[in-house]
Amino acid sequence: MIKIGILGGTGYTGVELLRLLATHPQADLRVITSRGEAGKKVTDLFSNLRGHVKLAFTEPDTKALAGCDLVFSATPNGVAMTHARELLKAGVKFIDLAADFRFKDPAMWEKWYGMPHACPELLAEAVYGLPEVNREKIKKARLIANPGCYPTAVQLGFLPLLESGLVDTQHLIADAKSGVSGAGRKAEVHTLFSEAADSMKAYGVAGHRHWPEIRQGLDAVLGKSVGLTFVPHLTPMIRGIHATLYARLTKPGADLQAIYEKHYANEPFVDVMPPGSHPETRSVRVSNVCRIAVHQPPDNSNARGDTVVVLSVIDNLVKGAAGQAIQNMNILFGLDERTGLHQAGVLP
Amino acid sequence: MIKIGILGGTGYTGVELLRLLATHPQADLRVITSRGEAGKKVTDLFSNLRGHVKLAFTEPDTKALAGCDLVFSATPNGVAMTHARELLKAGVKFIDLAADFRFKDPAMWEKWYGMPHACPELLAEAVYGLPEVNREKIKKARLIANPGCYPTAVQLGFLPLLESGLVDTQHLIADAKSGVSGAGRKAEVHTLFSEAADSMKAYGVAGHRHWPEIRQGLDAVLGKSVGLTFVPHLTPMIRGIHATLYARLTKPGADLQAIYEKHYANEPFVDVMPPGSHPETRSVRVSNVCRIAVHQPPDNSNARGDTVVVLSVIDNLVKGAAGQAIQNMNILFGLDERTGLHQAGVLP
Amino acid sequence: MIKIGILGGTGYTGVELLRLLATHPQADLRVITSRGEAGKKVTDLFSNLRGHVKLAFTEPDTKALAGCDLVFSATPNGVAMTHARELLKAGVKFIDLAADFRFKDPAMWEKWYGMPHACPELLAEAVYGLPEVNREKIKKARLIANPGCYPTAVQLGFLPLLESGLVDTQHLIADAKSGVSGAGRKAEVHTLFSEAADSMKAYGVAGHRHWPEIRQGLDAVLGKSVGLTFVPHLTPMIRGIHATLYARLTKPGADLQAIYEKHYANEPFVDVMPPGSHPETRSVRVSNVCRIAVHQPPDNSNARGDTVVVLSVIDNLVKGAAGQAIQNMNILFGLDERTGLHQAGVLP
Amino acid sequence: MIKIGILGGTGYTGVELLRLLATHPQADLRVITSRGEAGKKVTDLFSNLRGHVKLAFTEPDTKALAGCDLVFSATPNGVAMTHARELLKAGVKFIDLAADFRFKDPAMWEKWYGMPHACPELLAEAVYGLPEVNREKIKKARLIANPGCYPTAVQLGFLPLLESGLVDTQHLIADAKSGVSGAGRKAEVHTLFSEAADSMKAYGVAGHRHWPEIRQGLDAVLGKSVGLTFVPHLTPMIRGIHATLYARLTKPGADLQAIYEKHYANEPFVDVMPPGSHPETRSVRVSNVCRIAVHQPPDNSNARGDTVVVLSVIDNLVKGAAGQAIQNMNILFGLDERTGLHQAGVLP
Repeated sequence: MIKIGILGGTGYTGVELLRLLATHPQADLRVITSRGEAGKKVTDLFSNLRGHVKLAFTEPDTKALAGCDLVFSATPNGVAMTHARELLKAGVKFIDLAADFRFKDPAMWEKWYGMPHACPELLAEAVYGLPEVNREKIKKARLIANPGCYPTAVQLGFLPLLESGLVDTQHLIADAKSGVSGAGRKAEVHTLFSEAADSMKAYGVAGHRHWPEIRQGLDAVLGKSVGLTFVPHLTPMIRGIHATLYARLTKPGADLQAIYEKHYANEPFVDVMPPGSHPETRSVRVSNVCRIAVHQPPDNSNARGDTVVVLSVIDNLVKGAAGQAIQNMNILFGLDERTGLHQAGVLP
Repeated sequence: MIKIGILGGTGYTGVELLRLLATHPQADLRVITSRGEAGKKVTDLFSNLRGHVKLAFTEPDTKALAGCDLVFSATPNGVAMTHARELLKAGVKFIDLAADFRFKDPAMWEKWYGMPHACPELLAEAVYGLPEVNREKIKKARLIANPGCYPTAVQLGFLPLLESGLVDTQHLIADAKSGVSGAGRKAEVHTLFSEAADSMKAYGVAGHRHWPEIRQGLDAVLGKSVGLTFVPHLTPMIRGIHATLYARLTKPGADLQAIYEKHYANEPFVDVMPPGSHPETRSVRVSNVCRIAVHQPPDNSNARGDTVVVLSVIDNLVKGAAGQAIQNMNILFGLDERTGLHQAGVLP
Repeated sequence: MIKIGILGGTGYTGVELLRLLATHPQADLRVITSRGEAGKKVTDLFSNLRGHVKLAFTEPDTKALAGCDLVFSATPNGVAMTHARELLKAGVKFIDLAADFRFKDPAMWEKWYGMPHACPELLAEAVYGLPEVNREKIKKARLIANPGCYPTAVQLGFLPLLESGLVDTQHLIADAKSGVSGAGRKAEVHTLFSEAADSMKAYGVAGHRHWPEIRQGLDAVLGKSVGLTFVPHLTPMIRGIHATLYARLTKPGADLQAIYEKHYANEPFVDVMPPGSHPETRSVRVSNVCRIAVHQPPDNSNARGDTVVVLSVIDNLVKGAAGQAIQNMNILFGLDERTGLHQAGVLP
Repeated sequence: MIKIGILGGTGYTGVELLRLLATHPQADLRVITSRGEAGKKVTDLFSNLRGHVKLAFTEPDTKALAGCDLVFSATPNGVAMTHARELLKAGVKFIDLAADFRFKDPAMWEKWYGMPHACPELLAEAVYGLPEVNREKIKKARLIANPGCYPTAVQLGFLPLLESGLVDTQHLIADAKSGVSGAGRKAEVHTLFSEAADSMKAYGVAGHRHWPEIRQGLDAVLGKSVGLTFVPHLTPMIRGIHATLYARLTKPGADLQAIYEKHYANEPFVDVMPPGSHPETRSVRVSNVCRIAVHQPPDNSNARGDTVVVLSVIDNLVKGAAGQAIQNMNILFGLDERTGLHQAGVLP
């Protein structure tokens, strides 16, 4: 059994971690912290966990956490970095679900998250926890930066295309739609039910924090800098990301379906659908799967245009957060990668 | 008072027409037909209209309709064309909210709607009822083809950019999201609440009927053929279209905001928002406005990339259907274009 | 034209007042105040009002408001009472959409709203603005307490039954379901989209503030104290209240349908539906109508049980708040009661 | 491993059974039938099951089903009864998720479901599969009638109160709210997204099929006939039932909380919440739990009125259908009742 601590478990990634770990056969949850809710039982906050989680929240205390084999951090951005150094020193593995360790360059962190980095020396060591790219590095990591939700859906959708060398990598477009839970459990006006229901809007067109994260990830795979226009949209659903990706073919004629199927043939959590498919976000709701379809629709009188369209869907709280974190844990501890993540999508 | 008939008023565009006409000061609704519901009171089907509409549905009868000044057709595709010739002969003005008269080329109609056209000789005469493009022609029309919902949002969003001559018109992209009412009031599994709620999906990527309609409209304005990739998405909201448009700048440096503001300066129903805005579909819910914002976000390390992003929102049942039809009626009958269409968006 | 001021217009009742007043032919909106948003244009907060409202929010300033004929207060509870005395002294009519003047007894106010009343001497004068009960008093009022949303739906549903003398008035039950906008535009966790969507819960079973308000209203009509069990529920819709009311018949055999129809025969905004009807909240969405149906279903082997079921629906922001306030304004200023409130329900 | 067949697996109870059985350690799914979809892969209909279910639908063929240990019937009402006799003869256990075997009296079936019963001789033998009442009988059953969704929530909520002998059993009230999936996967207008979203309505007040089922269940426990007013409501959520139950106390003073806690102390799937709780339907979403709270609110000036309010929530597709069917299977085959049903509620 893996002794597990959770740093900051009162947000949506926290409750999702708790729900998934509750049925994970190797997880032994020992500590869950919250500055604001210390002393309160987890089930007082999240009644869905009654009968599953007996713990109460405790003050964030590095000593208690240091007794664990693994600590997940599900805090707001900027908190994990104040605990990482000490926990690593104590020999604890550390998976951060926030953004603290996603950038390689501390200046990028400071620019996009508005604060200096507390342990820039760890950024080089931190492994970006996208198993489909970094599985081997994850196996040997001490510190894992769990990817953002948009970056997971967008990178998994673009990767085969970029590696194929068939498209203009300087003008990629990612039109991404997210459910409202992606904005977290903070009390804010714009994510109130009466504001977000029965409506849709783009946001952050001038620059969203996940834009540099996606570019860094694609750059690393491609070995050079990509150009990317990224437009996120707030969509009236609880969970789910639907990324619609556009890239201009520079070399026509390839069998894109075959490229995608081959690329992900051995991936347990990426499902390339048959030609002509339109994945629905609900097909992956509550599951750890990224479901992808690739299209080459006409754009004029020709049967096939030169703009490729990739549809990529995930559950932002599972493959986009807590599920991927557990997938990383499984890899890190030598378990079957699918352990505790067997759940099929919940439909309807 | 304008004597009005409605052919086929049991769908969503029908009930929306009824609702809007009920408070239009010049509308005198005389006849409303429905093959399936003949004999039933309108309010038995649509209880929201109790106290507003006293009529009952009658069998589609050209004679009764021929006594009107104007007939709106709100039937499924392929019905209006079987009535148009006779009504026009009787001197009735005819506004079709379906697709029967949108294409200039009868072969296009047959290809996309799967049936031969019943009165191809009228296609040349029919005016495509997008007032922002064809206002002068609408004034003198006998037969108006009211535009589709996606085509309204997409064309209004692209027009200033295309006319500016600043972008690559061969690789336009329209990523459009529609509320479920766009699919109509037919009983179908995929638009059931339990199927469409809390989920999102693209559909018709290989070819949607609104794709050739948009291209025809843009071609006409541009005077040459455009290339367009069009990806519609089903979104869990009742009303609303959010079109996110992408075009590659070929000549940088222009003031796009000024171009849009100037283009629509005198339009009563197009609202160009201030720089940096993100229009929400609910800001136009139940109103006849198309609200637009134009962005030029970074795509790499430069402050402004060369991909323009236009956000265009409408209520698919109002500016995308019944409201625009009434706007066309107002123009046709020499009324102030805003008559009966003053309603602000309903928020929340 | 009536010169109008709005005290505190940044909540949902505020924006709804603004939307309705924008098309009211006798309304001349002069001032709108907000402590938090002073200096900001109304349309910066509520983009749906672009083109309809030109005003900016100003600091709450009694002098500016004193120049109006009528002031609506759309502030949180406890604010209107600090302005009322001075405005009345200046000859301004005052309609409070919050709860400050709903109770006759200042001790009740203090008990349920947790603060002493700032002008208890005005409570006796204040008229409870339910036109269907107090129309004559409203005509001559200076100060009107606009009813709460639940109280409007529940009282209109119960009144004919109570006045009929046919039911046990000591054991009334009101099972009421409200859309989330009833909770206002405050940033709170429990009304976030991700908390309130796709779920339902009762709340405040031990005692909700609208419970004593309803009882006071029913007591006044009945001339004696009623017994009422009131269970409100949070429902995943933006607008709408559905009150399901239960009362035990003590004298069987009466024609309840006729009683209801007769009671509301002359009311412009209460619609008694035909026998067997089930009103939907969307049939009154965005309209000022209360739609009612009365049933006497079997409860055992008899065809008619002795429990009457009344279904009563309103739009909580219109008949349950801003629309009813304007109805009161119309009565107060001698206008046709329906002025500016003609809108049919928005469906779908 | 239990060899399992599913008769008619294309509805929501079918796909939910498939999802739950996919991770049940003792389930070996052999056959799934559908007249309409025979030949099609299950995953062509339900993409969420890709990677989990390899079967294709086959024609309903008693021989293939006869090779199973257990057959679930997830067909529309009236189909299971045409297969039951033959399957039982072949030694197969049979659990019907529809209503065919719920009534003891064939005349009741005929009255409420509009067709004569095909095997009335089996009605006496069929066990009503509510484990909290009939666990011992279920262990030895051949034929199990899985309860309806409303009946499960309502009976579990009322049972302790009725057995306590403290309430007037002739005037029970059940005000029940259901998510739209309770209406099934049939294409019908009233359950379209655009009809059911953002709205609420009661339905079937004059008589819903679950009303006699609930009464039969309560009668059986009580040993005499109860009186029940049952008002179901359609609520804009996918899953979930919230039953709000009212009963008049005839003997005051008892500790109702203690009565409920004691009654369900050993039940794995009934969770009595602490005093003052308001269970949310989402707390049981995707889980097999029924969560209950009991209240005795004031109805007049006394602190405690004499109307008891019970709040009872379930997921209509799990504890209200497929989950309860698997719970019955577990009991029938001597497994731990919780096998394959460990899932905590999915929140958010």
